[in-house]
Amino acid sequence: MNGRLDRIRIVLARTSHPGNVGAAARAMKTMGLSQLWLVQPPADDAGVARARAAGADDILDAARVCRRLEEALSGTAFAVALTTRRREPLPPPSWMREAAPRLVAAAAQGEVALVFGNEQAGLSNEEAALCRLPVMIPANPAYSSLNLGAAVQVACYELRLAALEPGLPPAPDNPPATFEEIRHFYEHLEKAVTRTGFLDPAHPKRLMPRLRRLFDRVDLERDEVSLLRGMLKTFLKPWEKVD
Amino acid sequence: MNGRLDRIRIVLARTSHPGNVGAAARAMKTMGLSQLWLVQPPADDAGVARARAAGADDILDAARVCRRLEEALSGTAFAVALTTRRREPLPPPSWMREAAPRLVAAAAQGEVALVFGNEQAGLSNEEAALCRLPVMIPANPAYSSLNLGAAVQVACYELRLAALEPGLPPAPDNPPATFEEIRHFYEHLEKAVTRTGFLDPAHPKRLMPRLRRLFDRVDLERDEVSLLRGMLKTFLKPWEKVD
Repeated sequence: MNGRLDRIRIVLARTSHPGNVGAAARAMKTMGLSQLWLVQPPADDAGVARARAAGADDILDAARVCRRLEEALSGTAFAVALTTRRREPLPPPSWMREAAPRLVAAAAQGEVALVFGNEQAGLSNEEAALCRLPVMIPANPAYSSLNLGAAVQVACYELRLAALEPGLPPAPDNPPATFEEIRHFYEHLEKAVTRTGFLDPAHPKRLMPRLRRLFDRVDLERDEVSLLRGMLKTFLKPWEKVD
Repeated sequence: MNGRLDRIRIVLARTSHPGNVGAAARAMKTMGLSQLWLVQPPADDAGVARARAAGADDILDAARVCRRLEEALSGTAFAVALTTRRREPLPPPSWMREAAPRLVAAAAQGEVALVFGNEQAGLSNEEAALCRLPVMIPANPAYSSLNLGAAVQVACYELRLAALEPGLPPAPDNPPATFEEIRHFYEHLEKAVTRTGFLDPAHPKRLMPRLRRLFDRVDLERDEVSLLRGMLKTFLKPWEKVD
């Protein structure tokens, strides 16, 4: 079980309060998770994070600090964004309870990330668009403001229970595509639609978001990405000669 | 749904840190619970609880303060103790996920309490013995120390999900026995076993804990308690004349 939980990254993006970083570390450790990734973490000269982490300072010590969310997602095969509302261009949110077995199953094959945004502002649209699936924790509609550490606790609790369950049927042998492979595919796709004039840069009409939303719902395998890109390349050959 | 969540009391017994009282209030409100009961709460001249409660000060304002756990359980039909280990004389613990539908079903009929002990010491044996069922949150055996606010968050999250589910089959029409009725029954029982010499006060041999553990596993109805007590009274009649 721990093998899978060890491959799940908790990513805190642009957190404001160091106390919440410490609370997240403690929450993770109580549920058996170990990988904390921090994107532009807050200054913490007073050691507030360490105090709130209680006995989980090992998680803080091992935390990876990044400048941008892309770095924290590097090498992951599946990334989800915790959110409190529906966001375009992402597909409709899943509940955390439903998403947890899927995340744990994906972690049997590769690295997985759960991304939490800033306490007030949440994730930017650009950050959310880097994730494949938005995930929500059910809450009181009249007061849905979970503390960041509390949200990490609930998410890690669901992951632990999902990891303890017998889980989903065995995943196929084919390795999933990584974050970079999927990103390169989208870049390739965008170049292709632009090159072909299918996308008019002056009037993009949400074409790329719609394409991403479609492919984001598929758990693309590495071989499938290669296939798609090979296909694109072939399709585009005649266009290279035009101009 | 809210009717049931409104009948579930979160009872914090002898909490040390006012920040945890505030975090618990916020956790409750995010999940739609409203009744906070505090047994010997900590002093809080600096208003730390209010700061941590964020927008949940209405929960703090309405909190009931008690001297003893018995007061906080007064009028409840079902009380469970959050615990991190197996405790005698209580029955073996249930997982919070399994207990939640049962608590919500009980709340359809009467008041229910979830009791959380002190951050370091947990509940005293006397306090734990006032509850019918111990409940645990699954945790990393190597580091099971959930922050109190985080534990309240997970418990209330499970209660909310259980309240949103279709739930258990309709409960019988018979009202459950209250905390006081069950306590009076145990007192009656103890008097009976003592009076009859079945219990030797010099060598009690854990007789009462074993009896309580038996009856605590039954969701006693009011009429059943009356029946048991009527029976005891009848049984004991001849003993009143002896001496």
